[in-house]
Amino acid sequence: MKRTRLSPDERRSQLIELGVSMLSGRPLSQISVDEIADQAGVSRGLLFHYFSSKDEYHLAIVEHISQEMLESTAPPDGLGPIETLMSTLTAYVDYVSANRTTYVSLLRGTASGDPATRAVFERTRDAMVDRTLAQLPLVGIEPTPLIHLAIRGWIAFCEEATVHWLRDELLSREELIALLTRALPAVALGPDDAAALLAERSTAP
Amino acid sequence: MKRTRLSPDERRSQLIELGVSMLSGRPLSQISVDEIADQAGVSRGLLFHYFSSKDEYHLAIVEHISQEMLESTAPPDGLGPIETLMSTLTAYVDYVSANRTTYVSLLRGTASGDPATRAVFERTRDAMVDRTLAQLPLVGIEPTPLIHLAIRGWIAFCEEATVHWLRDELLSREELIALLTRALPAVALGPDDAAALLAERSTAP
Repeated sequence: MKRTRLSPDERRSQLIELGVSMLSGRPLSQISVDEIADQAGVSRGLLFHYFSSKDEYHLAIVEHISQEMLESTAPPDGLGPIETLMSTLTAYVDYVSANRTTYVSLLRGTASGDPATRAVFERTRDAMVDRTLAQLPLVGIEPTPLIHLAIRGWIAFCEEATVHWLRDELLSREELIALLTRALPAVALGPDDAAALLAERSTAP
Repeated sequence: MKRTRLSPDERRSQLIELGVSMLSGRPLSQISVDEIADQAGVSRGLLFHYFSSKDEYHLAIVEHISQEMLESTAPPDGLGPIETLMSTLTAYVDYVSANRTTYVSLLRGTASGDPATRAVFERTRDAMVDRTLAQLPLVGIEPTPLIHLAIRGWIAFCEEATVHWLRDELLSREELIALLTRALPAVALGPDDAAALLAERSTAP
């Protein structure tokens, strides 16, 4: 196979992206470094120059996917709280739909026997929780331990509902997004506060 | 090690229970059949008479735990809908608390690289969803695809919130159970219907 000259950063990205694309057809544990090196047109030795072990290479793939998901679902500026939430969830549902095999297989634990991989997922969830908590002062809500736990659980709610929805798509995309959006105030706040927050949406500028 | 005479059913149970107790200290993948056979005072050959492979033995352990959890959280008869829900969730929180290492390590995917193990978890969630759906006619709610999906997501919400709560216990057990209980009507119904259902509790006979 023909060798291409790439900078170290480009080479590292190329190796990771090859792994990510391979992940749509098989579990992480079956991604062989020999095959990746072959497809990239580099030696196995060079691959191990970038990643010290097969596990480290697999971990870099998982980190790449987590980072990509977080970036593609970053909350936009300048919207009201419910619009911000809805925008983030729209991006999340679309990201998972577009990357279903890859994302679902990772989320469903194809890779999760490995503690380092689980740690990446935990950090990803932490980042999603922190991002959601950061919105609370904007709506005058104090982040109590109960709200913190409710947000954490709600992330799992969104993951499970989205992954399950992809199987049969019995709801429209818009119905799913509406379900995920209203679920957050519903679990984190009492019914009156949740209704008030959702109602604000129509009166926001 | 001394051999004990047991009936085939007793022997099978003994081997599974040894595995379950070992699971509190290490992941499923590190439970060795040799060690189990040794502790049970039987030959490796006899163990493979009961379980055709190591994977099948591991699967039997996971099935045992799932079944135990489902049985210990079976909904009681004769209570109102919210009381039934709260009773089930109390049993769930207590079960997870009492079996935290075992249950959490399984749920967190220590074992979930294996598709057969994942299938047991999916079936366990299905059973929890079906059980919840079965309560709906009692409160005059029709199980739409949206409610179905909301219940599915809510199971994941309960798992995540409970497992996360165990880390720091910043809420009391009662606060956690109240959060999980009100979250179901909150995500599955609109705010008005949810409030009405929760209010019924105080007027129920």
